[in-house]
Amino acid sequence: MILVMSPRHTDAELDDLRERVERTGARTVVSRGAGRTIVGCVGDHDALESVARLALTGVESATPIRTPYKLAARGIAADRSVVRAGPGAGVAIGAHALAVIAGPCSVEGRDMLHTTARAVRSSGAVMLRGGAFKPRSSPYAFQGLGVEALEMLAEVRAVTGMPIVTEVLDPRQVDLVAAHADVLQIGARNMQNFALLAEVGRVRRPVLLKRGMSCTVTELLLAAEYVLAQGNPDVILCERGIRTFDTVTRNCLDVGAIAALKAETHLPVIADPSHAAGRADLVLPLACAAVAVGADGLIVEVHPEPARARSDADQTLTPHQFAELMAAIAPVARAVGRALSEPRAAALPSAEPTHCRRAHA
Amino acid sequence: MILVMSPRHTDAELDDLRERVERTGARTVVSRGAGRTIVGCVGDHDALESVARLALTGVESATPIRTPYKLAARGIAADRSVVRAGPGAGVAIGAHALAVIAGPCSVEGRDMLHTTARAVRSSGAVMLRGGAFKPRSSPYAFQGLGVEALEMLAEVRAVTGMPIVTEVLDPRQVDLVAAHADVLQIGARNMQNFALLAEVGRVRRPVLLKRGMSCTVTELLLAAEYVLAQGNPDVILCERGIRTFDTVTRNCLDVGAIAALKAETHLPVIADPSHAAGRADLVLPLACAAVAVGADGLIVEVHPEPARARSDADQTLTPHQFAELMAAIAPVARAVGRALSEPRAAALPSAEPTHCRRAHA
Amino acid sequence: MILVMSPRHTDAELDDLRERVERTGARTVVSRGAGRTIVGCVGDHDALESVARLALTGVESATPIRTPYKLAARGIAADRSVVRAGPGAGVAIGAHALAVIAGPCSVEGRDMLHTTARAVRSSGAVMLRGGAFKPRSSPYAFQGLGVEALEMLAEVRAVTGMPIVTEVLDPRQVDLVAAHADVLQIGARNMQNFALLAEVGRVRRPVLLKRGMSCTVTELLLAAEYVLAQGNPDVILCERGIRTFDTVTRNCLDVGAIAALKAETHLPVIADPSHAAGRADLVLPLACAAVAVGADGLIVEVHPEPARARSDADQTLTPHQFAELMAAIAPVARAVGRALSEPRAAALPSAEPTHCRRAHA
Amino acid sequence: MILVMSPRHTDAELDDLRERVERTGARTVVSRGAGRTIVGCVGDHDALESVARLALTGVESATPIRTPYKLAARGIAADRSVVRAGPGAGVAIGAHALAVIAGPCSVEGRDMLHTTARAVRSSGAVMLRGGAFKPRSSPYAFQGLGVEALEMLAEVRAVTGMPIVTEVLDPRQVDLVAAHADVLQIGARNMQNFALLAEVGRVRRPVLLKRGMSCTVTELLLAAEYVLAQGNPDVILCERGIRTFDTVTRNCLDVGAIAALKAETHLPVIADPSHAAGRADLVLPLACAAVAVGADGLIVEVHPEPARARSDADQTLTPHQFAELMAAIAPVARAVGRALSEPRAAALPSAEPTHCRRAHA
Repeated sequence: MILVMSPRHTDAELDDLRERVERTGARTVVSRGAGRTIVGCVGDHDALESVARLALTGVESATPIRTPYKLAARGIAADRSVVRAGPGAGVAIGAHALAVIAGPCSVEGRDMLHTTARAVRSSGAVMLRGGAFKPRSSPYAFQGLGVEALEMLAEVRAVTGMPIVTEVLDPRQVDLVAAHADVLQIGARNMQNFALLAEVGRVRRPVLLKRGMSCTVTELLLAAEYVLAQGNPDVILCERGIRTFDTVTRNCLDVGAIAALKAETHLPVIADPSHAAGRADLVLPLACAAVAVGADGLIVEVHPEPARARSDADQTLTPHQFAELMAAIAPVARAVGRALSEPRAAALPSAEPTHCRRAHA
Repeated sequence: MILVMSPRHTDAELDDLRERVERTGARTVVSRGAGRTIVGCVGDHDALESVARLALTGVESATPIRTPYKLAARGIAADRSVVRAGPGAGVAIGAHALAVIAGPCSVEGRDMLHTTARAVRSSGAVMLRGGAFKPRSSPYAFQGLGVEALEMLAEVRAVTGMPIVTEVLDPRQVDLVAAHADVLQIGARNMQNFALLAEVGRVRRPVLLKRGMSCTVTELLLAAEYVLAQGNPDVILCERGIRTFDTVTRNCLDVGAIAALKAETHLPVIADPSHAAGRADLVLPLACAAVAVGADGLIVEVHPEPARARSDADQTLTPHQFAELMAAIAPVARAVGRALSEPRAAALPSAEPTHCRRAHA
Repeated sequence: MILVMSPRHTDAELDDLRERVERTGARTVVSRGAGRTIVGCVGDHDALESVARLALTGVESATPIRTPYKLAARGIAADRSVVRAGPGAGVAIGAHALAVIAGPCSVEGRDMLHTTARAVRSSGAVMLRGGAFKPRSSPYAFQGLGVEALEMLAEVRAVTGMPIVTEVLDPRQVDLVAAHADVLQIGARNMQNFALLAEVGRVRRPVLLKRGMSCTVTELLLAAEYVLAQGNPDVILCERGIRTFDTVTRNCLDVGAIAALKAETHLPVIADPSHAAGRADLVLPLACAAVAVGADGLIVEVHPEPARARSDADQTLTPHQFAELMAAIAPVARAVGRALSEPRAAALPSAEPTHCRRAHA
Repeated sequence: MILVMSPRHTDAELDDLRERVERTGARTVVSRGAGRTIVGCVGDHDALESVARLALTGVESATPIRTPYKLAARGIAADRSVVRAGPGAGVAIGAHALAVIAGPCSVEGRDMLHTTARAVRSSGAVMLRGGAFKPRSSPYAFQGLGVEALEMLAEVRAVTGMPIVTEVLDPRQVDLVAAHADVLQIGARNMQNFALLAEVGRVRRPVLLKRGMSCTVTELLLAAEYVLAQGNPDVILCERGIRTFDTVTRNCLDVGAIAALKAETHLPVIADPSHAAGRADLVLPLACAAVAVGADGLIVEVHPEPARARSDADQTLTPHQFAELMAAIAPVARAVGRALSEPRAAALPSAEPTHCRRAHA
């Protein structure tokens, strides 16, 4: 149930309303936008209906949420959500400026990580990606450097001021990863790992949730709902290509899903052109397509020497290719009314990731 | 086999070369670009190898074509192909300027067609689409007005000067449709209708070939090869979305396929955001994505009153929405180094469609 | 609209009823089963409703057909349809006994065809398949021997008495192929080639309609409806595997579709385990699965020397492997209450294919 | 590397061989079949090659394992594996007799569980399924009764003697579930939850591993390899239908994958016709297809009153329908040379699940 408050409602009316709704066992989420306040109510449908039938003072309209996801639904928020991450909550995803995340598939060592971080930051990336724990189809493939990689990531953040996003695979590692990283990534294979979703819902770190390779847009939003329902409002959705019959690209970048997500949810949506393309030469045009269709950011694989990368070598860009990509997407971003984040002139080192806030909460 | 001529080759050397190659039973296609001339040779592999092993004067390099498609392969042409269509061959697809084709799904009557044509032309469309023969899943659905519709299309061309593209379904109708239309469309369901492909390969009209809903990029290029192999060099490829497990859009616009096609072939590639989206509100963002990824044009469904359209009502734009789409894609086109065709200020009426030429032939 | 006649209706009542219905512009199809007669009416919904509201004597019940296909719907026929084909209409598909069709992918010569025909007949096949016109992805691949192959097929029928099924690709060839063959095959790529469907709907030959590689069960039944609506009641449906993301088999044999088709339609349904498997070692288990799920027959590729076959070599069985397949499916057929057609002891040569009748018509 | 021992090798030769191989860091798995012994070696390819080049006494042949999965590969085992589960290891999966597992989607209460268990046991089921922890797309859907349900399952096992299979969702719950259940199920959504796979690889309970809805056969075998590589040899694979474009069934039962798995691996393979069909009326024919194609067993959803089931109501059979299914598959099993497990006449109650052994270990 979405309750839109009348423009001149009082705080007392709002408090009274929330109390009544919560008495039915439902939860309320208040979202304040330019000129209007919305109270999202998630709970038993019939109980909410009976509350809504009362003559509620200060309420302009009451509309049921017809989608299976509630907290993720577009209408529950007065505005689009902006997720903030990193030292000083300095990076915003979902704001006017595009947010580009870049870095190696796997953290392979201290030097390559520093080199990559400096290179992508100088081209305009605002966050560093790097895998510490790698989900690999084969148990015999390189599984990542683990805790050691987390420490390298934290170290590079301290030096560069770039927030860190890294994948978490196991509910038992959520606290460990959250202690080092600014954003927790849930990979495509774990999109419906509900134990893991619930666990990242309990920490105060933004979650980057990748779409499963054959999951529908509705299933992606329901997976986000698992995180939101635990109290963590900071979910960034990521389209990374779906599995089809064709192998000309590794996955099929579903730009229609990005457009549909922007219509269906207030959460920010980014794209991963690297995993979609599966080949370096197509990453740039796919990045342009994602920006043009309305993505709020990108996540791109970059390595100082892609040919020597221990995973995803074929789809990884050199720092130079990444600079070209950034130059290519900048005018596309402007063409669709967005800007590109400027490289952070003065990095503000901080060893400890700071808490993040949700724009509409 | 691709033979690149040396910069200072003589005409006699070129003629001699072609004669030798053709003596093996192979065909040759000469393509002249800025500063270089290429002779594409399609025939028996071993025979071509033996010719190439000779010390050929005037030839700089000889490279086998490793893809199953030959005439469609990127390397066989010195430059990207530009397909020209319509009265005075006045419309170019594959050139610097994007070419936007628009019009109703089906031709439903004279008035609606005139209204639509004028509206889309004033927004910058360079060609008019309209179905006379409609392929419908059910035999009980509206099948198009047939010959009557062809006549209306020709009439509207005479008045507006806009070239006409319309679908042909049956090899027996190719001559009839070619007598009225400037471009022959092969629909997605007929992409592997080889009898029809061969027939449109025999006429002198450009062919707009839509990708089958589950056909690979390689299969699309092989379908184009059927047309090219019959001697018709003017094929425009069209990505219109593929079938997947998700139903949030009608089809999944495969922007990766557009990018891959631009890498694999010299033929122009356009996109159909209307059939991909399946819903009017997502046509504009998908159009932007297609332009950003490198499409050479778009084909868009427009109807004066979409709600009353006899087919594809949900995905059809109003003239006003189409104008917004054109306004939205113009800066995206510029962002990727393209322009948008200007509305033709002075229409040049001509009752008879004229022949078309291929840029690189 | 399905009208079930009361058990003691008179012929006059039936005639009167049909006349009234047909006066609305609808068509009627009478189907007589054990103890009941059904009149299927296909036409304008409202007009049929108004007829049904009259107190019709002799009619027990009137039910609208809610599926988009009408003549193909299960309820329109009193019993399952049996399609009869070949000299003396001697082969039945959809009857108690399974019908197995076998033969080479392409007709490559007189001798190989005779050898194959004798071999498969001796193992229990009741019909011979063989491609004269081959739809190939590439224009440079072997396209079949054409008319020459049709003549070889007719010749082998004359000698062995086996009816012939062969593919027709072009509406202009329907009469030619129908003059030689007993059953006209529409291949997967042409399932929605509506011009071709309409044309085979006009001749008196059974049609073997293969499911398109990404077509739904509903679309397959609508394609059958195109043939039925032209007056040809003899359609055999064929599941041949669908396209998915996995390549362990060439296509995914959709046994669920076979089961669903048996629930949705009165038409016979067969399976093609050869094109589904794409590899010879899996054809036998897939054949067993198809029989167990309820298929009315199989179509299997057999060649005297598969390794030398000009098409589909990998999935083609030797005559010996085919005999093993027949031995394997016989007990499975019995397990699901079916028999396997006996090899025809005495072949009845006939140069001219005879007309066929529909069981329930 | 697969080392086949010569028929008259000595134990000393075998011990010596294993020692040499393990000195390279590789692991060895000895498999003794009728008349031959195989030593599977999994480790560094080059090191294994160098060992194999030595003149190894007692070794008949050395063959590299070319598939990415090693311990799951067909050739590494002398015979097909039989997984034994339950009190007294009394139930065998992968043996001559088909093993049918049945029970409710979710454990909803003590009475319904007892009723279902007695009913399915009397029809020939050898194991009881029932969800305690349910993975649901929506956080607001019924998530299972949890620990309470585990206790009910253990209680029903004590009374009926039927082993229990139930799903585990979280690596932290593996010990808890293993303390109550005889077989641990990994659901389709968790097939590539590598943390969970590793954890079930560490306990001594057989694992029922369901194929992910868009995972390839190779990926399924690699997921099994994660379990095997941890030392748990008892993996049962389960095909439960894949996601495609058609919705006539909930998922597409991929019988070709079952046939391919039987060719690729020694592990037992069962099928889940309930989740494939998604509708009760198609479960029986799909069960017949799965048995005919070579599945070693089935897992079927049964509920005393399907219409009142809290999950998967549409696809759940009544006890009566399940009895019909068992009657239908029995002759199909015999037709493909298999038997159906007899209902256990005398249940042997045991509160504690016993350890299980692998046939070929």
